[in-house]
Amino acid sequence: MGTASLERFGTVAIVGVGLIGGSIGKALRAGVHKKADHVIGIGRDQGRLAEAEQVGAIDQGFTDIAAGVAQADVVVICTPVDRVAMDAIEAAQHAPGHALITDAGSTKQAIVSAVEADPIARTKFVGAHPIAGSERSGVAFAREDLFRGRVCVLTATEHTPVSQIETARRFWKTVGARLVELDPTSHDSHLARTSHLPHVLAAAQAAMVGGELVPLAAGAYRDVTRVAGADASLWTAIFLENRRAVLQALDDYNERLEEFRAALQASDVRALTSWWNAGQSNRRVFDAQNSGESIATESSGE
Amino acid sequence: MGTASLERFGTVAIVGVGLIGGSIGKALRAGVHKKADHVIGIGRDQGRLAEAEQVGAIDQGFTDIAAGVAQADVVVICTPVDRVAMDAIEAAQHAPGHALITDAGSTKQAIVSAVEADPIARTKFVGAHPIAGSERSGVAFAREDLFRGRVCVLTATEHTPVSQIETARRFWKTVGARLVELDPTSHDSHLARTSHLPHVLAAAQAAMVGGELVPLAAGAYRDVTRVAGADASLWTAIFLENRRAVLQALDDYNERLEEFRAALQASDVRALTSWWNAGQSNRRVFDAQNSGESIATESSGE
Repeated sequence: MGTASLERFGTVAIVGVGLIGGSIGKALRAGVHKKADHVIGIGRDQGRLAEAEQVGAIDQGFTDIAAGVAQADVVVICTPVDRVAMDAIEAAQHAPGHALITDAGSTKQAIVSAVEADPIARTKFVGAHPIAGSERSGVAFAREDLFRGRVCVLTATEHTPVSQIETARRFWKTVGARLVELDPTSHDSHLARTSHLPHVLAAAQAAMVGGELVPLAAGAYRDVTRVAGADASLWTAIFLENRRAVLQALDDYNERLEEFRAALQASDVRALTSWWNAGQSNRRVFDAQNSGESIATESSGE
Repeated sequence: MGTASLERFGTVAIVGVGLIGGSIGKALRAGVHKKADHVIGIGRDQGRLAEAEQVGAIDQGFTDIAAGVAQADVVVICTPVDRVAMDAIEAAQHAPGHALITDAGSTKQAIVSAVEADPIARTKFVGAHPIAGSERSGVAFAREDLFRGRVCVLTATEHTPVSQIETARRFWKTVGARLVELDPTSHDSHLARTSHLPHVLAAAQAAMVGGELVPLAAGAYRDVTRVAGADASLWTAIFLENRRAVLQALDDYNERLEEFRAALQASDVRALTSWWNAGQSNRRVFDAQNSGESIATESSGE
């Protein structure tokens, strides 16, 4: 049980109401005691805002960012990573002086430095990355529990006002996330390894199995390539925003593959076994830390 | 509905009663109309045979291969790939003249040529690979429906008697599999791409995320690395048995990665998009062909 969180926010404006923005809206509006008085959705497309209202993700939609954030206590930017900084800067111009501006972008360094180059936005902004999502996109897949128990990384800097950091912590805890605090560069280099790289591998592997090979693919292929079904523009933008760290992760990964190749070419059983065990042991640590979650256990090992 | 299969076998002997062997036993013994009169398990370890009997995978256990196969109409070798040929040859010496010997190994070329070098075994053997399994091993995880709707590749050669091919087809259909027929070399080169390579990628990726990075790993990491939890000795043996094809698949995969790297280094949005789409489109073909199965849809896209 524990103490029920009674955090409550006034007006929250969500810029970009897709899977992530919609899930934030649903989390705030769920339950008997809603966690925000008013949830505003801001987007370009009137039809998508209507859908967000219909599925219960927002109370009201605006196509104009200035009007939408005018009364906001918290603004969350959930647009694709290559638009986050621009939207945050625009929101900062029109939001009340006390407002927190945060985001949900999968990359942080480029966003944070662009936002901090703006004198108004820099006093309001706390970069955030809730590590949750799906290969599916759109508000239709939004879930109030998308962030429950998931890590959200906050990337405050020495320019970030302490009061804004406090509000950002309260906000992301309120939607259900566990907090981890990192500087933007560490975030990007860590996430390049834990998330962006697996997407590259998945897409590369998926591209290798077409035509007559498809019926021969089973559980290992299914799981390794699942995220290859994600949106191209979303991921192209992430790779470009985090270019340096992704290239570095790819270099390290290639070294791992080269170790495997050398061991296999030499038919070196001991080297192959110890190479395999390094991955298996990390995977077991991950399993132990995520034992509460349902982890896919279906066929593979084919 | 369709016509119920009333195929029935006399005595089936399973050499190696782990996940795969145990699931074959359970499939044969399931239902009101059992599909074999008698299911014998053969293994080195008395305790594991007792467990196999207890979970309903076999009727009777033998630690001696000669005694175990003496009355067998069908012998299925389910030992690790580096032991299949040896066990098949030994079984062939002691099984009745009409017996079919088949296997469940994940590689075929090395096994088939070793078996076909033996004048007795070659007249009885039809190589097979039921593409199903799990990252878990052991008879405790055996399931009667493990092969239901899964592809089983048969790799008969010009030396294989037609009557044995017919029996092998009936046998693998009886445990629930859909048949695909390939020569051993094509099997190995296809499976290197669809199955062995994803295991290499999974293990390499898993090795890159340890320590403080583990809490930052979420759905993409979880799915991409699931098969890295599989047994080291099993997979080391598969890589070694299929060394040439795995190295070739790895070369092709590296080319895909190099295309990605070049596009990212050049910040070439069009090239990145088309690179991503090649994988996504194959993955959609796979999804369409497997729409009956439950495909994991949990978080990623982080």
